[in-house]
Amino acid sequence: MRRPSNPVNVTIDPDRLLGDLRRLRGFGACGIGVVRQSLSPIDVESRHWLRSRLEEAGLDTRIDGLGTVFGRSRNPGPALLIGSHTDTQPRGGWLDGAMGVIYGLEVARSLAECDETRHLAVDVASWIDEEGAFSTCLGSLAFCGELALTNAVRGLTNGEGKSLGDALREAGLEGVPVERCERGRYVGYAEAHIEQGPWLEHQGKRIGAVTAIVGSRNFTVAFEGQQNHAGTTPMALRRDAGHALVELAHRVYETFPEQAGERSVWTIGRIALDPGVQSIVPGRAEMHLQFRDEDEAILDRLEEHARALVAESNARGRAEARMTEVGKRSIPAAMDGRLREHIERAAEHHAPGGWISMPSAAIHDAQVLARHLPAAMMFVPSIGGVSHAFEEDTSEEDIVLGCRVFATAAANMLLGRLPPDHGPAP
Amino acid sequence: MRRPSNPVNVTIDPDRLLGDLRRLRGFGACGIGVVRQSLSPIDVESRHWLRSRLEEAGLDTRIDGLGTVFGRSRNPGPALLIGSHTDTQPRGGWLDGAMGVIYGLEVARSLAECDETRHLAVDVASWIDEEGAFSTCLGSLAFCGELALTNAVRGLTNGEGKSLGDALREAGLEGVPVERCERGRYVGYAEAHIEQGPWLEHQGKRIGAVTAIVGSRNFTVAFEGQQNHAGTTPMALRRDAGHALVELAHRVYETFPEQAGERSVWTIGRIALDPGVQSIVPGRAEMHLQFRDEDEAILDRLEEHARALVAESNARGRAEARMTEVGKRSIPAAMDGRLREHIERAAEHHAPGGWISMPSAAIHDAQVLARHLPAAMMFVPSIGGVSHAFEEDTSEEDIVLGCRVFATAAANMLLGRLPPDHGPAP
Repeated sequence: MRRPSNPVNVTIDPDRLLGDLRRLRGFGACGIGVVRQSLSPIDVESRHWLRSRLEEAGLDTRIDGLGTVFGRSRNPGPALLIGSHTDTQPRGGWLDGAMGVIYGLEVARSLAECDETRHLAVDVASWIDEEGAFSTCLGSLAFCGELALTNAVRGLTNGEGKSLGDALREAGLEGVPVERCERGRYVGYAEAHIEQGPWLEHQGKRIGAVTAIVGSRNFTVAFEGQQNHAGTTPMALRRDAGHALVELAHRVYETFPEQAGERSVWTIGRIALDPGVQSIVPGRAEMHLQFRDEDEAILDRLEEHARALVAESNARGRAEARMTEVGKRSIPAAMDGRLREHIERAAEHHAPGGWISMPSAAIHDAQVLARHLPAAMMFVPSIGGVSHAFEEDTSEEDIVLGCRVFATAAANMLLGRLPPDHGPAP
Repeated sequence: MRRPSNPVNVTIDPDRLLGDLRRLRGFGACGIGVVRQSLSPIDVESRHWLRSRLEEAGLDTRIDGLGTVFGRSRNPGPALLIGSHTDTQPRGGWLDGAMGVIYGLEVARSLAECDETRHLAVDVASWIDEEGAFSTCLGSLAFCGELALTNAVRGLTNGEGKSLGDALREAGLEGVPVERCERGRYVGYAEAHIEQGPWLEHQGKRIGAVTAIVGSRNFTVAFEGQQNHAGTTPMALRRDAGHALVELAHRVYETFPEQAGERSVWTIGRIALDPGVQSIVPGRAEMHLQFRDEDEAILDRLEEHARALVAESNARGRAEARMTEVGKRSIPAAMDGRLREHIERAAEHHAPGGWISMPSAAIHDAQVLARHLPAAMMFVPSIGGVSHAFEEDTSEEDIVLGCRVFATAAANMLLGRLPPDHGPAP
């Protein structure tokens, strides 16, 4: 099936877009950064403001029993669900997820102002706690039926030791129902976000059409050798755990490129020698190894290769190495190809040659939604690749271009009448 | 000049030797270990006991103004000075330096009991604070005129915060003169010690004739790259300080064997990545590099080579590496070849084929004395290479054999009438 080669073009209002982004920035502003963690008083205040803006845009609005803000179109479906998050990291930037939510607001307004698109249905969500003050992607997981507000979940605490239950009570949300995805309503889910990396800037591009959200695996490799005096232990008699670690790490750096995909990344972020003093041959050592890719098969291959390198290290016999998976394995989430095509076509229309397709290396709510709906993501450049920091920024030109592309893509996703291939959560 | 191929053989009294060693062990015994740090009450008590044993051996004795115990032969010189130390580490073994001091006592007694050797002059010293509770090799440095008891030295404090001045006052040593080396008296200095390493045991040998006390150099190499998000930063754009460190460390392990001497040792005892967490590409990293050898020219070559490896790392451009020397450089001290020959000949006599010549990788008072007198050292095996630990031990057979060899060597050093090539300290 081919969609029209000349998409409907949506006209957005750049001043209105930037004005709302700046107003949202005012909630929790801290110098050039923003501190607006989930369900903090300033976050709750900002949610009421957002709800009023969605209401003014002609949507039916509510804040659900977890704090997620919804604006629902009064047009009949099928609808496009546009979402992101307005909560921030403990020291966050002003755009991050906030930009994607205000994009949703502006798309809903812009489509309603144009004869060709005013009949289309766009719902907007600001998912609670994507950043995980209590639990990462809390709102999208609950919406998709993957998480229920049990007593255990109510007992989750944030960095200040406050429980989710108490935070919800203080926000006046106790007893308010938690919204669930309406089966059959949505053609898909779309999310815009800053890139949080340097790739677009480095490639001289302004729009990224996301192919997949990468998965990651984390391991520790622990080495057990023999602690000894660094002066009196001859080299030939040493069982130096640090030496074994360095050789394994060297082999990781040397051989991972052959095994990796084009966009795979791998990181040794931590190394510790024990006892870690100048005159003692280390008896124990430990390193952390992480790798990420959008393709589960590549992650499997990298893990298999890492295990082979550990076996190779053990065959050298310098120290005994043991590799253990740690933390929660994150599964790659492919974005929907047809939705992505709409983003690419809109990008080509508004910025010819100025876009690329690329994976997302960071976690987003779209990773959850993609398990239930066709999902798409779009990136705009992060200046210097900086995010999760006060200095995070994107040029106004890129913010406005991104919204133009996103609005045009959204309209065409709906006009393309994509069938809801994936059912919503049970 | 050839010395007699059949040395005079000295007969020692093994029970007397082991009895005195066990009595000394009782001062500060702590399970199978010993805690007898310099100028602690139990150390001072042990010094008075040692003085009385030297007195009983027919020597003129004194405890000098720093706590060093001396026993001086009443025979005319030239004399052989035999020394070591009876102080211990905070958690020390029973032999360490104590064995060498009791060897000196037993040599003095044994030589006096034999017609062939009773005219020979052996002086015995237990140098204060070789282990550095206040300052490493304090007694031998003062004896050689390299350190004076200034107010600054009196102000040095031990691990409990007690000053040397106060410790000397409490020991009743305030105002007592500090002994100085008598010019022209000594043919040389001899010290016996446990090996503190596994080499003799590993080689199946019982006596080590020390060729030199090794020197050591210590460096840090600091790497400055660019801290980044481990998910969103593509491999090609990374400036990973940890990666640069691992590659340099790998090159150290790979290439040092070509540059090193037969007995050189090199150790990377500490590695730190900053910030050292799993999802961040390290922006800074630091490693410690130490190497030791008995040959200053080899140390120079290793340092030059390490600097070349740092330059090679900087040429790769992954991060900026900077190498800085840290701590005090220790200079190798060659032992006197003719004195060593007496040890080797005595060893061959008492344990044919059971000895080797080898360097000392640890610091000893002989390192200080060697700058002023012809000096020699002899090692006996440490079980499992363990020292500076409660578990440190040497078999009784090896302790007794060591004393036989040392006594025979000492007699022949004096009978050989070695000219005092080196003058004493000014």
